[in-house]
Amino acid sequence: MINVGILGSTGYAGQQLVWLLNSHKNVNIAFLSSNSYAGDPYSKVYKNYNGFLQNVCINMHDVEDKLDEIDVLFLALPHGKSFHVTQKALEKGVKVIDLGADYRIKSKEIYEQWYKVDHECSELLKDSVYGLPELKRESIKNASLIANPGCYPTASILALAPLLKNKLVNPKSIIIDAKSGVSGAGRSASIANLYTECNDSIKAYSVACHRHTPEIEQELSDIYGDDLKLIFTPHLVPMNRGILSICYADLIKDISQEELYEIYKDFYKDEFFVKVIEDMPETRYVSGSNMCHIGLRIDKRTGRVIVGSVIDNLIKGAAGQAVQNMNLMFDLPENMGLDFPAMVP
Amino acid sequence: MINVGILGSTGYAGQQLVWLLNSHKNVNIAFLSSNSYAGDPYSKVYKNYNGFLQNVCINMHDVEDKLDEIDVLFLALPHGKSFHVTQKALEKGVKVIDLGADYRIKSKEIYEQWYKVDHECSELLKDSVYGLPELKRESIKNASLIANPGCYPTASILALAPLLKNKLVNPKSIIIDAKSGVSGAGRSASIANLYTECNDSIKAYSVACHRHTPEIEQELSDIYGDDLKLIFTPHLVPMNRGILSICYADLIKDISQEELYEIYKDFYKDEFFVKVIEDMPETRYVSGSNMCHIGLRIDKRTGRVIVGSVIDNLIKGAAGQAVQNMNLMFDLPENMGLDFPAMVP
Amino acid sequence: MINVGILGSTGYAGQQLVWLLNSHKNVNIAFLSSNSYAGDPYSKVYKNYNGFLQNVCINMHDVEDKLDEIDVLFLALPHGKSFHVTQKALEKGVKVIDLGADYRIKSKEIYEQWYKVDHECSELLKDSVYGLPELKRESIKNASLIANPGCYPTASILALAPLLKNKLVNPKSIIIDAKSGVSGAGRSASIANLYTECNDSIKAYSVACHRHTPEIEQELSDIYGDDLKLIFTPHLVPMNRGILSICYADLIKDISQEELYEIYKDFYKDEFFVKVIEDMPETRYVSGSNMCHIGLRIDKRTGRVIVGSVIDNLIKGAAGQAVQNMNLMFDLPENMGLDFPAMVP
Amino acid sequence: MINVGILGSTGYAGQQLVWLLNSHKNVNIAFLSSNSYAGDPYSKVYKNYNGFLQNVCINMHDVEDKLDEIDVLFLALPHGKSFHVTQKALEKGVKVIDLGADYRIKSKEIYEQWYKVDHECSELLKDSVYGLPELKRESIKNASLIANPGCYPTASILALAPLLKNKLVNPKSIIIDAKSGVSGAGRSASIANLYTECNDSIKAYSVACHRHTPEIEQELSDIYGDDLKLIFTPHLVPMNRGILSICYADLIKDISQEELYEIYKDFYKDEFFVKVIEDMPETRYVSGSNMCHIGLRIDKRTGRVIVGSVIDNLIKGAAGQAVQNMNLMFDLPENMGLDFPAMVP
Repeated sequence: MINVGILGSTGYAGQQLVWLLNSHKNVNIAFLSSNSYAGDPYSKVYKNYNGFLQNVCINMHDVEDKLDEIDVLFLALPHGKSFHVTQKALEKGVKVIDLGADYRIKSKEIYEQWYKVDHECSELLKDSVYGLPELKRESIKNASLIANPGCYPTASILALAPLLKNKLVNPKSIIIDAKSGVSGAGRSASIANLYTECNDSIKAYSVACHRHTPEIEQELSDIYGDDLKLIFTPHLVPMNRGILSICYADLIKDISQEELYEIYKDFYKDEFFVKVIEDMPETRYVSGSNMCHIGLRIDKRTGRVIVGSVIDNLIKGAAGQAVQNMNLMFDLPENMGLDFPAMVP
Repeated sequence: MINVGILGSTGYAGQQLVWLLNSHKNVNIAFLSSNSYAGDPYSKVYKNYNGFLQNVCINMHDVEDKLDEIDVLFLALPHGKSFHVTQKALEKGVKVIDLGADYRIKSKEIYEQWYKVDHECSELLKDSVYGLPELKRESIKNASLIANPGCYPTASILALAPLLKNKLVNPKSIIIDAKSGVSGAGRSASIANLYTECNDSIKAYSVACHRHTPEIEQELSDIYGDDLKLIFTPHLVPMNRGILSICYADLIKDISQEELYEIYKDFYKDEFFVKVIEDMPETRYVSGSNMCHIGLRIDKRTGRVIVGSVIDNLIKGAAGQAVQNMNLMFDLPENMGLDFPAMVP
Repeated sequence: MINVGILGSTGYAGQQLVWLLNSHKNVNIAFLSSNSYAGDPYSKVYKNYNGFLQNVCINMHDVEDKLDEIDVLFLALPHGKSFHVTQKALEKGVKVIDLGADYRIKSKEIYEQWYKVDHECSELLKDSVYGLPELKRESIKNASLIANPGCYPTASILALAPLLKNKLVNPKSIIIDAKSGVSGAGRSASIANLYTECNDSIKAYSVACHRHTPEIEQELSDIYGDDLKLIFTPHLVPMNRGILSICYADLIKDISQEELYEIYKDFYKDEFFVKVIEDMPETRYVSGSNMCHIGLRIDKRTGRVIVGSVIDNLIKGAAGQAVQNMNLMFDLPENMGLDFPAMVP
Repeated sequence: MINVGILGSTGYAGQQLVWLLNSHKNVNIAFLSSNSYAGDPYSKVYKNYNGFLQNVCINMHDVEDKLDEIDVLFLALPHGKSFHVTQKALEKGVKVIDLGADYRIKSKEIYEQWYKVDHECSELLKDSVYGLPELKRESIKNASLIANPGCYPTASILALAPLLKNKLVNPKSIIIDAKSGVSGAGRSASIANLYTECNDSIKAYSVACHRHTPEIEQELSDIYGDDLKLIFTPHLVPMNRGILSICYADLIKDISQEELYEIYKDFYKDEFFVKVIEDMPETRYVSGSNMCHIGLRIDKRTGRVIVGSVIDNLIKGAAGQAVQNMNLMFDLPENMGLDFPAMVP
C-alpha cells in the first residue's frame, strides 16, 4: 500500500488526482491539503465524493508534519508555490510528483524568463525527471522527483516524437495548433472563465508566448538530437475537458501515408495508453480516460504531414500521467488504476 | 464468471452496458449484437474501446444460437422488439434483464395504450420483476426476468418513495417536472436531435402524455398502497447526460424540514447508491456514476414539499441499474463494477 | 430624438440595453456609466461594438452632472444601489426605467424582508409603475418611474394571467418551475458561474426562497383580485440565454384544451410580442428577440393545466422590455427597435 | 423595392437569408422554396418567424414560373442542384446570387475533381464573379451571377490578403487551421451531427482534402499574382455558429508587429465590416453579425506571422455576404440590413 498526500487537492488537476488515487487498489490517501478549504470535508467541496471519501482538507502549513506518513507527495499547485515543501519531502525520502511546471524546464534561466518567478530549488533540476513514460520510462522508475509534463506538451510531444526520432521532418518547420477544454484554465473565479464568456465561442490565446513552448521545444530537441524552435498556439474551446493537438511539419523524406502510419504503429506498439488510429482523432473518445489517440495525414500537394493527437487534459495531461508515473516508481503495473476507456457520450 | 450477451449494444444505453460489463471483474462479454453494425468491430463503432475490446458485432438473428453460451441476456432495444428472443432465452434458463419498457407495466392494456404496440409476451408480466433495487431487492434476487426501470421513473420514484411510504403527502397532488440530457433521446439520426437543434435551448416535450407516466404511477401506487395519478413533464436540456427530477407534493402532516430530512436519511440509510444531501442536487455530481443524490425543501408558505433527485440517465437510469440488478441476481456484492464516483468537471 | 443614459452599462442587462438603444432610430445614447470600467471605451469592454459605438464609460459619480442631458435614465445596477440618483433624476424631470428590483414590490416591508436591504426611497413606491406592458400599458404611458419586471416574473405572469383573469384555476394550486440560461446570474467573477461549474449540468437553486416569488405573487394577486401564494423554483441551465417557465395549476372549470387555447389567443390577440402557439415553446425560438411564446396543455387525467412560456431573459426579461416601456412613455410605436425575430440556430 | 426569391430556404444558410432579407427595408420576399417543406408555412418550419413572416414554402418545380416576379434569385442549395434554374433566371434578366460552390472555382476540371459532380453550366464560369466585396467590389456591382464565397474561404482570404498583396510571406508556407461551429454542417439528419456526437468534443475533419482548399488557393493566387498551394484543416467545434481561421506563414521581410498592424489597418481602413484589432479575435464578438475581426502576432522566434480571423459562418460566411453583394448589385448602401453588432453573451 502506497501512502500518498496531495497539495492543491481542490484544484481541477488535484481533484482528478483524488478521483484516480481513491479508486487505486494499492493507494491510501493519507491527507488532502487545500488552503481555500482547509477544515472542510473534501466531499463538501466536491459533492461527487459523498459516500466515497471521508478526508477533511488540511492546511498547507500542516503538511510538513505529515510527510512521515506518506511515501509520495503529489503537488497540484500553481508554479512557484511548492519549493519549500518539495525540499522537505525529498529530505525525508518521500518521492515527489509535481504536476506543476517548476522542474520541467532544465534551464533555470529559461524557466525564470517564461514563468516570471525565481526558481528557488534549481539544484533539484538536474535530478528531476520529465515524467513522460512513453519516452522516459527507465528514468522515471528510478526517480525521486518527477516533473509531470504539461497537458499541451504531452499531447504535442507524443504526436511529434516518431517524426523527430526518425528525422523525417525539417525541425524548423513545426507548427502546433492546439485546442483545449476550459478545465485547463483552472478553478479560480475570473470573468474570462465564466460560463457566459466561454460558451458557444472559440479563441486563441497566449499566441506566440505560451509558457508550454520552451517545454515542448526542450523535449523535442532532446528526441531530435539538436535544438529546434517551433510555434505553439493554444485555443480555448467550449467543452469541459480534452486537448486536440494538430501538428504540422515539412517532410524531408519521400514517404507514403501507409509507410508513415506503420512507423507510428511501430513506435507505439508496446504502449498501452497510446493508440495510432486510421481516422483523425476526437477528444470525446479519450476524455475521462488516460488514453491518447494519434492520427496522421500526409498532404502530398504541399509535402507536409499533419498529425493529430488527443488526450484528456486533466488525466493523461496531468493527474492520470502522474499516477502512471507513480505506478512506475513503485514497481506496479503501469496501467493500474488507469485501465478504463472513455465514457461516451 | 458470468457470461453475458447484449442486444442493441450500439445504442447509448447498450454502449453504457458494454462499458460497465467490460470493466466488471466477474463478467465475460460473450457477444454484442447490433443490427446496424453487424460484422463491424465494436471499437470501430465506438472508438473509445480501441485497446479495450476485441468483440465484433453480430446480427440479432445469430443471437438465438448463442444463448447457450450465456448466463444472462441484456436487452437494450426499443420496446416491442425483443419478445421472441426473451422467450427463447428464458426457456433455456438464461436470465434476462430488459432495459426496455416491455415488462415494466403490469397491465397489458395500459402498456398497449401507451406504447401503441401489441404485447406479445404478456404471460411473462406476472413473474417479471421491476428492477429498482432500493425497493425490490429481494424480488430481484430471485427473478429470472427483470424489467429494468425507465430513467425518469428511477429518479422520480426514489425521490417520492419516502413521502408516500410514510403517507406524508396527498397522493393526488404530485407533480414531477423532470429535466434530461440529450442522450436520453437515443442515437438515431433525426433533425430534432441535431446539435444545432438542441444546443443552447430548452423545451418541455411529451407534455401530459409521456409513456413513463403509467410506470411511475404504478410503482408509487404500490408504495403508497392505493392508486394515484400524477403529472409528469419531461424536458430536453443541452447536456449529454443526467436527469434532475423535481417533485412537488402537498404535505398532509405538519412536519419540519429537519424532521423530513431525517426520515429520508433513515429511509435510505443502508443504500450505497442513494445519498440524501443537505443542498439541492446537481446532475454533474452523479453523471458518470451509478449514484443518486436527493435533496428536499419544505415550503412553509404553501405547505408543500419539493424533492429534487439526480441520476445519470444512462447509468443509474439504465445500464448501471441493470448491472446492479445482475449483481443481485448472481449473488455478488451489489456495487461490484459500480463503485466509483462521478468525474468532474 | 430621445436622449438616454445607462447606469450599470457593462453588466449583461446593461449591455443588452446598449445593443437595443444603439440600434434604435429615435435614441441617442448620451452616456454609459460603469464603475468597473470608468474611463475605458465601451467597445474595449464589449468588443462586438468595435465600429458601432464610440462612447467611453463614465463613473457613476459623474452621472448626476449629466442628468440635464437626458430624457430618460436606465438603471441596470443590482438592487439597492440607485436610490439617490433615482431621486435626483426624477426631480429634474428625467424619466427613470429601473431594471432592478427596487420599485417592483409595492410593500416596503416585503421588499426589505426578501432583499435584505433598507428601502431608502419608499415614497416613490406608490407612483412607480410595474413595467409589464401587456398588462399595464396605460399606466406605463403616464409613468415617470418604471419598475421593470424581473425576468422569471415576466415569463411566469404572462403564462398565468389568462387563467387568473378568467378565474379558471384554484389560486392556491400554482406551481412555477422555471429554467434559465446562465446570463441571468450576471457577469461577476464567482466560482459557481465558471464555465466548468455550469457546463453539461443542471440544478435548481434558491428553492422555496427566490426573491422573485413576492413579485410574481403581487402581480398575479392583482390580476386575480385576491391574495395568492405560490411555489417558484428556478433552475440554472447550461445555455447562455433564455427562460422557460412551466406553470401548473388545478382547473376549477371544466374546459377543453381547444377552448382554453382560444381564451389565450383572445387574451393576447392584440399583442405584438406575445404569441400563443399550438406546440410547447422552445427558448431558441425567442432568444435574441423581445418575443414571448406561450403553449399550453390540459391534463385531463389530473384536471390540471400546464402552461409553458419562453422569453429571452436579457431582452423581454429585462432590456427589451425596458425599451418597450420607453417607447410607450415617449409615444413611439411600441415595437420600435424591437421588431425582429430570434436568430437560429 | 427589390423582389427576391430563395431556393433552399429551409437549410441553415437559407434561413439566415430569410432573416436578413425579411428585415431589409428595401426587399420584398416574393417566394421561399423548399422541397422538404413545400406547402408548409415558413413559420411552421422555423417558429421564430411566428408573427414575422406569412410566406408558405413552394416547391422547387414551381419556381420557374415565378422568375418573372423577382429581381434576384438566391440559391441556398447544395452544390450541383441549381444549374437549370440558374440558366433560366439569367435568361430572364434575373440576377442570381449562388451561396453554393458551383461558380466559385473558375476551372471546370478543378471543380469536378473536388466536388465529384459534372458542371452543367461551365459557360457561366467566365462571367460569374466571386462575391467577396472587400476584394471584388467593382466586379460585383456589375455582375449578373455571383458565386458567393464559402465560409472558411471568406475568413481565411480576408486574413491573408494583406500579407500576399504586399508579398510579405513565402506563398508556399501557408497553413490555415480553421475551427467552425456545427451549423456549418447543415440541417440534414445524420448521426455524426447529433447533439450527443458533437457536444463537449472537438475534431479535425476532411484533413488534407477539404473542398474549400482550391477555392482559397485560387483567390490567394489571384491576390499574390502567382499560383500557390496551401494546407487547410477544418475542425468541428461544439458551438452553433462562428469560424475562427488561424493562418500561419513564413515572413520574408523583416517587419515588426506594429508595422504589420499598420499595414492591415490601412488595407481595411475603408471597410465597414472588417476590423483589425489589437487582441486576438473571438468568434462570439462577431457571431450574429456580418462583421469580421482580424488580429495578428509576429513570432520573432521563428520568423512567422500568425493571423486570426473570425466571422459568423452563416452571415459573413454565407447569407450576410450574399445580402452585402445584393446591396452592391442594386446600388444600395453596402451595409443596409447588415448594420448591427453581435449580441453577447
